[in-house]
Amino acid sequence: MNYKIRAATKEDCKDISRMITELAVHDKMSDQVKLSYEELEYDGFCQNPFFECLVAEVSEEHKSKEGFTTVGYALYFYTYSTWKGRSLYLEDLYVMPEFRGNGIGSGLLSKVAEVGKKKKCVRLQLSVLNWNTPARDFYAAKGAQDLTVNEGWHSVRFDGQNLDNLANEAPKDV
Amino acid sequence: MNYKIRAATKEDCKDISRMITELAVHDKMSDQVKLSYEELEYDGFCQNPFFECLVAEVSEEHKSKEGFTTVGYALYFYTYSTWKGRSLYLEDLYVMPEFRGNGIGSGLLSKVAEVGKKKKCVRLQLSVLNWNTPARDFYAAKGAQDLTVNEGWHSVRFDGQNLDNLANEAPKDV
Repeated sequence: MNYKIRAATKEDCKDISRMITELAVHDKMSDQVKLSYEELEYDGFCQNPFFECLVAEVSEEHKSKEGFTTVGYALYFYTYSTWKGRSLYLEDLYVMPEFRGNGIGSGLLSKVAEVGKKKKCVRLQLSVLNWNTPARDFYAAKGAQDLTVNEGWHSVRFDGQNLDNLANEAPKDV
Repeated sequence: MNYKIRAATKEDCKDISRMITELAVHDKMSDQVKLSYEELEYDGFCQNPFFECLVAEVSEEHKSKEGFTTVGYALYFYTYSTWKGRSLYLEDLYVMPEFRGNGIGSGLLSKVAEVGKKKKCVRLQLSVLNWNTPARDFYAAKGAQDLTVNEGWHSVRFDGQNLDNLANEAPKDV
């Protein structure tokens, strides 16, 4: 199946928003999606965007059962390592189930790596859930290493009330 | 001990660079630091910087054994959650050993949280090594949750040759 990968535009936000929810359903965390379409549009396409996104498109003749031609996306942003420098973080990589097995996921991932290399990024990082064996195997087969297993890195998060508490404790003399 | 927290300027890069190396020595990974002072300065203080940084300063009378008054730093950048929106990632939080126990680490962390709240970030994330019990306890005591333990998130990385390979496989028709 032919497909095309291109940088997302503002007009793609409706499709991206739909697929964000589809991915969260797959991750068994659909109740966690609190981001509105309007926020996504503003944050991705304002003057200093918080993320960048690629979308995968198929031709009209291969559209999905529901009539969609935008069938996958990769959403990423720039991060920084004080040991190595510029890095890229892949927040989401998704292909609609009925379009899997055509190399679209691999194509999106490689395109993100290519974007990173052009911006002189030396790393591409992402997170996977430990029960998601297909995803873990997919990235491992492409040569990625699991930093949690190999080096013992844990992800830690402040949010909600504990983030508010933390901010409220900030020294006031500054 | 009195201390002051302020946004880092270009002139702080020498101190930040020194402390990045000190932190890597503590993390038992000093051979991993490949970032030059020049890269740090450019990437942090160019027109679209890749990170932001706060530094902690003590007065001249409390300077370190080697004569330093900049004794801690917090380096962070903006990330994005497709479930929750704007987020902040704390890459490094460091206080020189002889200045610990004065609340400087807590002060830096809270200031970062405050910066995040001002920018409407709903999360503050970071990574810790599993053997680093003092750090894990410190963040847990402040209310953070360990996503690797609680939800099973693993960090995955492409770099070096496997990142090059990935980029080279990118579809060429785009």
